Amino acid sequence: MRPKIDVSEIETGVVGLGMMGTSIAVALCIAGHPVKAVAPIAHELENARKSIARQLQHADASGLLQQPISFYMNRIRLSEDYFVFQNCRLVLECVIEDKAAKARVYRKIAAATGTDTVISSNTSAIPVSDLQEMVPEPGRFLGIHWAEPAYMTRFMEITKGIRTEDRYADWVYQLAHQWGKEPTFLQKDIRGFVTNRLMYAVYREIFHLVAKGETTIADADKAFRYDAGSWMTYMGIFERMEQQGLSDFSKIFQRIFPKLDNSTEVPQLMQEMVKTKVKGVQQARGLYTYTREEAAAWEKSFAEFNKEIYQLADQYQKIKNE
Amino acid sequence: MRPKIDVSEIETGVVGLGMMGTSIAVALCIAGHPVKAVAPIAHELENARKSIARQLQHADASGLLQQPISFYMNRIRLSEDYFVFQNCRLVLECVIEDKAAKARVYRKIAAATGTDTVISSNTSAIPVSDLQEMVPEPGRFLGIHWAEPAYMTRFMEITKGIRTEDRYADWVYQLAHQWGKEPTFLQKDIRGFVTNRLMYAVYREIFHLVAKGETTIADADKAFRYDAGSWMTYMGIFERMEQQGLSDFSKIFQRIFPKLDNSTEVPQLMQEMVKTKVKGVQQARGLYTYTREEAAAWEKSFAEFNKEIYQLADQYQKIKNE
Repeated sequence: MRPKIDVSEIETGVVGLGMMGTSIAVALCIAGHPVKAVAPIAHELENARKSIARQLQHADASGLLQQPISFYMNRIRLSEDYFVFQNCRLVLECVIEDKAAKARVYRKIAAATGTDTVISSNTSAIPVSDLQEMVPEPGRFLGIHWAEPAYMTRFMEITKGIRTEDRYADWVYQLAHQWGKEPTFLQKDIRGFVTNRLMYAVYREIFHLVAKGETTIADADKAFRYDAGSWMTYMGIFERMEQQGLSDFSKIFQRIFPKLDNSTEVPQLMQEMVKTKVKGVQQARGLYTYTREEAAAWEKSFAEFNKEIYQLADQYQKIKNE
Repeated sequence: MRPKIDVSEIETGVVGLGMMGTSIAVALCIAGHPVKAVAPIAHELENARKSIARQLQHADASGLLQQPISFYMNRIRLSEDYFVFQNCRLVLECVIEDKAAKARVYRKIAAATGTDTVISSNTSAIPVSDLQEMVPEPGRFLGIHWAEPAYMTRFMEITKGIRTEDRYADWVYQLAHQWGKEPTFLQKDIRGFVTNRLMYAVYREIFHLVAKGETTIADADKAFRYDAGSWMTYMGIFERMEQQGLSDFSKIFQRIFPKLDNSTEVPQLMQEMVKTKVKGVQQARGLYTYTREEAAAWEKSFAEFNKEIYQLADQYQKIKNE
């Protein structure tokens, strides 16, 4: 048995209050931590408050809260001042994927906290060992990689950099179980981490197939969603291969691996999207066309879906562990 | 509005009664077709009968049946003799991925049926245009690619070969809607088809990461399942990118694409699995260790899961289409 840590005494901090940062703040708060949340960009604060309130309502509607919403609202302190981190034992950085911006944030966190406060990044693009070099006392720095919505997903990758000390990583691993996660430890500090690497392999191939006219965006989405989406909540990739029967795969690998795309360049279609400053569903402009109302309805129904898929995954996790 | 076809008068046939073939026979039968099912391997017949009965029970428990199970059992005729196909307008081949074996099957189907009977393959490895050359009257041949369990998934890819005539493909596309599918038409006859190509890109990368010691089989499975598995039932790959915000992806592509594996060889680990004749969960021997009882419990709980995820996908499909 893993001993329980009393998290109500452990203050935690979050820097960067976009979609991911606010979601992490909510997750830590629901798990029992007092939370200090800092917006390095001043105008983020008001949006952050709304976003946190909305997510707490979502969590409440999903049966995740033991206390009224106001109880949690009161335990998340929003600020522009890093000084609120002074008693934090763990601070999570969730700002943009830019080394210079992150370096500034780490300097400010370090200045406000003790030398054994664990500092972590949610980066999915920059090696933890690189970021670590920008942190005073780099032994207490590591990657903690969350999935959205942070309060309602079990995924968590914990990544040590070259200089990360085990005592800090082990402590976070233990905490993660109390956050309701199924954490995995990354053996090495690779770029993109495991699940992102796998998804980037998919992105590379799908852009290739669309560019070659082998499929359309809408058809590829429909097909993958109804195919992979019908089992992926239940099992991983290797488990899937076992379920399908391993012996056929070898022959198919031999035939298909040489046909897969090996591009190292950003796909043309993506370059065009960036040029025209298309952002996606949050701005109701993207690869698909929709009105702002449709985009809002889509986000709302996905929030509902999150709840259902979380409960479904939970239920089958219990069955599999019996 | 698409006019409804009266499928109760359209006899359909299935050759190859393994996991996929029996599941397809059940799907066609539930959709209303009379079904003739031929096992080219004699000992498959007894297993096929049991497998069909079990799947009909599953469909019944999931609320998919309008009639008692016996009604459907009586509308699936099992045989070793291709002559049962004589009145079939569509015959689906689901035998092993071997050109010579498939050629023998096509000759026998063609000998038993009329020249305008549509013949199709569920292959996910051999180009439809190649298979087509082994079929008399190749214009009526096409690929119909199912997902498992065939009676409880919406996925279907319809693939034309170079010589496939539109009238046959259009007819199958129309029928597919009556089977409860969300069919996609493949523009071209590529190996592996869209969803498989995407999955093979994942397989290539995941074997690479495990081989390099970047992750373990169990951790990779856990991470991917809890990450991708938390949204994939709801949306496709491009939809996901939109939801995440397109602008970040371009930078990450630039950094990560050059790091992805480009192997053309069967991974070492897979070669070893093949050598030791490990088959997977059906024989309770594979990458994971489990007892036969655990393997059976796993299959049973996945059947339950299929039902739930099908209903969940259905519910959100309706919301998205509103």
